[in-house]
Amino acid sequence: MARFSEKYKKARSEKNSVMCIGLDPVHEKLEGKDILDFCLDIIESTSDYVAAFKPNSQFILFSLNLEQLKELNEEIHQTGCISILDHKLSDIGSSNESAFYWIKRADFDALTFSPFAGNIEEATEKAHKNNLGLFILTLMSNPESRWIQKETKFEGKSLYQKISEEVKSSGADGLVIGATDHVTEEDIRKTRDLAGDDKIFLCPGIGAQGGDAEKILKNAGENILINVGRAIIFDEKPEEKAKEFRDLINRFR
Amino acid sequence: MARFSEKYKKARSEKNSVMCIGLDPVHEKLEGKDILDFCLDIIESTSDYVAAFKPNSQFILFSLNLEQLKELNEEIHQTGCISILDHKLSDIGSSNESAFYWIKRADFDALTFSPFAGNIEEATEKAHKNNLGLFILTLMSNPESRWIQKETKFEGKSLYQKISEEVKSSGADGLVIGATDHVTEEDIRKTRDLAGDDKIFLCPGIGAQGGDAEKILKNAGENILINVGRAIIFDEKPEEKAKEFRDLINRFR
Repeated sequence: MARFSEKYKKARSEKNSVMCIGLDPVHEKLEGKDILDFCLDIIESTSDYVAAFKPNSQFILFSLNLEQLKELNEEIHQTGCISILDHKLSDIGSSNESAFYWIKRADFDALTFSPFAGNIEEATEKAHKNNLGLFILTLMSNPESRWIQKETKFEGKSLYQKISEEVKSSGADGLVIGATDHVTEEDIRKTRDLAGDDKIFLCPGIGAQGGDAEKILKNAGENILINVGRAIIFDEKPEEKAKEFRDLINRFR
Repeated sequence: MARFSEKYKKARSEKNSVMCIGLDPVHEKLEGKDILDFCLDIIESTSDYVAAFKPNSQFILFSLNLEQLKELNEEIHQTGCISILDHKLSDIGSSNESAFYWIKRADFDALTFSPFAGNIEEATEKAHKNNLGLFILTLMSNPESRWIQKETKFEGKSLYQKISEEVKSSGADGLVIGATDHVTEEDIRKTRDLAGDDKIFLCPGIGAQGGDAEKILKNAGENILINVGRAIIFDEKPEEKAKEFRDLINRFR
């Protein structure tokens, strides 16, 4: 079975895209449409322009069952894309094992993980046993994360720097770093230096969240997924919008 | 509608118990039993001895649908107990709003929340708008959490101390503090001092995890829920085991 980083490189090269579409089906905005149908429609109309889709657990897990999650992932894989569950898993031990078991059964390729419990190494080992890629939350896109991720220090280093080092030493597949204003060019370069060139940077905060694709690409390089969510999926013409964002991002590659 | 703290006090007083049972239906241990049936059987046989049940999302969300979650909570409420979803929510903005929307629809009374995104105040406000109680992960039971929660510092204070202060200022309902070895009596007293007497301390790490009920009760006082999970639910006689743990805990009250 292909490792996650190989699946990622294949999708990136075949689609000529480092874009990821965040599937955040906000229940008030669906106007009676079924959540699964809404996601399948978006995948069908936008998949030519993206390497990955990223459904968020807080929008889909309470309403889709295991069979429906499999159907979602089957559609994503048929378009040649990879599927990352934005789960922000934050648990320990056998609770994490249970999450990996079910997420693999639902046929996702990777998931996001929160390092608050301090167990990046243990979680990475367990994720890899299930052939799942793991992205560690490192420097998030919301401004409220600044005090804890940048201003809180471990042995004199900002917490996000210590986490970047752990991403490297644990063998995790990538990390999440925002593209919003409180994340500076220096923060991005420092994170890349510490985590290593082989880690995939998953970057939310473009589009509706006002982030900056150029800033990320210039400082983190090619090994990257730039996430665009609501600016595409709630546009009247998701396909055109996806092409527009893909072209915008590719201008800086 | 009753606030969460009132529901908690009512259950504690009616059951003469500060025990919570963690519903962690590990799929390998169910021997073909349905996850919902397994949970309903445990609730029925143990509810006389506990104030709360705490199902963990990583064991139940991939296999139970919304109607089944409602059925689970209906059973918990009929026994006079409260229901806390151990969700360790770790997201931001409208993703958290979506989680609160679905968790309320499934009829849980409260959930656990990870503060890694730095947004305790925002999350508490949104949880309360949905009439949900919120427990903030503060000092966890797994030893790997030590470096990040105790040894990482914000303005000279351990991260768990800064989080305890935020639990107080945000108006969150409670916090999660482990009962395992790396959490000292002084840590518990400090957390209680900073968070305030009205916060409910949810304490995993007793029983199978080897924690210490006396240490918690002596240093954190009565406003507490002591969680016991696998030592009860995977015992051959869950009812007897629940009574045994309840009596053990009440000896120190």
